[in-house]
Amino acid sequence: MSDAETSSPLRFSLLAADAGSRARRGRLATPHGTVDTPAFMPVGTAATVKGLTVEHLEESGAQMILANAYHLHLRPGEALVKAHGGLHRFMGWDGPILTDSGGFQVFSLAASSRIEESGVTFRSHIDGSLVELTPERSMKVQNDLGADLIMAFDECPANPCTIDVARAAAERTVRWAERCLAAHGNPAQALLGIVQGGVHPEVREWCATRIVELGFPAYAVGGMAVGEAPEETRRNVSVTTALLPEDRPRYLMGMGKPDDILDAIGRGIDLFDCVLPTRCGRNALAFTRTGTLKMRNAEHRGSLLPLDAECQCPTCRRYTRAYLRHLFVADEMLGPTLLSLHNVCFYQDLVRDARDAIERGTFGPWSDAFRRRLAPASEATSPEPNDPVR
Amino acid sequence: MSDAETSSPLRFSLLAADAGSRARRGRLATPHGTVDTPAFMPVGTAATVKGLTVEHLEESGAQMILANAYHLHLRPGEALVKAHGGLHRFMGWDGPILTDSGGFQVFSLAASSRIEESGVTFRSHIDGSLVELTPERSMKVQNDLGADLIMAFDECPANPCTIDVARAAAERTVRWAERCLAAHGNPAQALLGIVQGGVHPEVREWCATRIVELGFPAYAVGGMAVGEAPEETRRNVSVTTALLPEDRPRYLMGMGKPDDILDAIGRGIDLFDCVLPTRCGRNALAFTRTGTLKMRNAEHRGSLLPLDAECQCPTCRRYTRAYLRHLFVADEMLGPTLLSLHNVCFYQDLVRDARDAIERGTFGPWSDAFRRRLAPASEATSPEPNDPVR
Repeated sequence: MSDAETSSPLRFSLLAADAGSRARRGRLATPHGTVDTPAFMPVGTAATVKGLTVEHLEESGAQMILANAYHLHLRPGEALVKAHGGLHRFMGWDGPILTDSGGFQVFSLAASSRIEESGVTFRSHIDGSLVELTPERSMKVQNDLGADLIMAFDECPANPCTIDVARAAAERTVRWAERCLAAHGNPAQALLGIVQGGVHPEVREWCATRIVELGFPAYAVGGMAVGEAPEETRRNVSVTTALLPEDRPRYLMGMGKPDDILDAIGRGIDLFDCVLPTRCGRNALAFTRTGTLKMRNAEHRGSLLPLDAECQCPTCRRYTRAYLRHLFVADEMLGPTLLSLHNVCFYQDLVRDARDAIERGTFGPWSDAFRRRLAPASEATSPEPNDPVR
Repeated sequence: MSDAETSSPLRFSLLAADAGSRARRGRLATPHGTVDTPAFMPVGTAATVKGLTVEHLEESGAQMILANAYHLHLRPGEALVKAHGGLHRFMGWDGPILTDSGGFQVFSLAASSRIEESGVTFRSHIDGSLVELTPERSMKVQNDLGADLIMAFDECPANPCTIDVARAAAERTVRWAERCLAAHGNPAQALLGIVQGGVHPEVREWCATRIVELGFPAYAVGGMAVGEAPEETRRNVSVTTALLPEDRPRYLMGMGKPDDILDAIGRGIDLFDCVLPTRCGRNALAFTRTGTLKMRNAEHRGSLLPLDAECQCPTCRRYTRAYLRHLFVADEMLGPTLLSLHNVCFYQDLVRDARDAIERGTFGPWSDAFRRRLAPASEATSPEPNDPVR
């Protein structure tokens, strides 16, 4: 392993390990504060977690949030963010921030992408203008944005893809990772390496080995949660984390439903992000400990119950299902806000309870019981809720 | 004056009077707390002040808010609100609430209204269903909603209207006020009388005299801010307040721009409500002490300034104009929320500073100076900023 990370601004401590799975309880120190792991990052794509204020995020217990270099490069541009002194000042969030590199968005959002060895040329999904992103350019954008954790610029192949396509993308991801390491210009930011490989375990293994050889202070599993079957996610996550060093944090990008998160914690993942809590919150879908609720449904019209009787979030402490349904039916902005707040709190409670269970040595039974309660009424959980975690 | 108000749950104290105008500094005690007057009520039409949480309202300094009986009767219905124990519990706001009677909305929003002596039959603007509101029915709806202050059901003639139409509406408003007094069934709520009369001072005088004879714990000037010229508003407000008892609060319904509010304070008004701070907030218009700002404009693209350098609101303490513009350009919900919060805080600062100036005996010069600063860049102020207040 190289010493590329010796000057890393991250310090990761493992505090406890689960006996019956690969779940870990850790703590990640960053220049803007500490993150208890396993951790869930709410997604603030355009330098705002949709529908929530910074105070809401603080109340939820979130310790780190994610923003997106692709979106911020297109609008408002990294120069404006840098002129504010970086993302923390721009968006008023003083805690740790991670920026995604734009690799995934270039493939999923941009029109007419053309991938070459130098980088990707594409048309902006906002105004159609021609934009080029390269490993070097992504580093410059992320250096200017100034997040605590930044991501290598990778190639994320479409799902499904053949093993040859997956291998070519993984090889390019490794070559681009080397260029990112060389171009990364801000020692106050930690650059994370990303493992690609589609749903082909042998490609994942090859890529993980090579990325670890390059040496990063933390590692990400990329290219998952792109439509593959749950058992493929699980196998590939396990294969990848088995090859990542124990003493570095591991981040499963873009995942997922509560059940997916518990599963991946059992496979050794420390960091998560996903748009689900806020996207579902805007679309009237509530996460609860007994499954999801569609808050526009007539069944909630007269309900004086809170969303989740066990939840202590500001929404559940103060409002009934009937009031929340009224807000959605009346198209009031407060509906999406209060439901996004509840959902983000639900996700924070989930990882907090997982951390507690790992510390107590009861992660396996706790997780099994939690997943069984989620399943019956839930549409937002995976179709195989009883698939063993480990 | 009758003793209809002896059992009023309101207690109004006059603390100071301005020497150079009719401005008053008062305090209104209600079953849910105290309101310092002159006061501005943010509008929570459908039991939510659009875009803001209850915590935002508390932070703004707002002491009383308004909700609307017409909207809540149609959706979700007063029975559901009553089942929650009333509006305070339903919407999570523990402070004083005033409900409008629905009179104004029946005329401005409903389709195919038919006005008879018994009441108004109209089609719901939501689903087209046929609804009847009468003085008795409005009292029942408002009794069930459970606000601290409730409004008589009145007839609000369209503007412009002939003196005959204005007189007929004022006469019916008086007859309906008697029926409201008779039907009002909850002694924990204060019923306010409304003076109508269009822009015809002699009708206003007649109506004010008759409504005061009926005896209410507080009085409202209705049917203003419906498109009449500013000088007509001013004359009719002055004519009306001159006939209202000094020891009762006076409420100018639906008014207005900052300049209008300062003007009306000088004419003896104590209570205000208006959708402008939140409606403008959603539409990217910021109120500042030096006029309004259109936050989508390119001129703000790179501005590191706060909206208003003198404002201490959560938005101005934390965010630049450039960030707020970015939120609006990116269609992020946080833009309307942060701008509505600022605008509501601006209105609360306005009435707080007016109260302070009245206490110090400097209302006239303070108000003149404030209105001069507002005028130059402002589109949201009246066209006659130098029209004398008194």
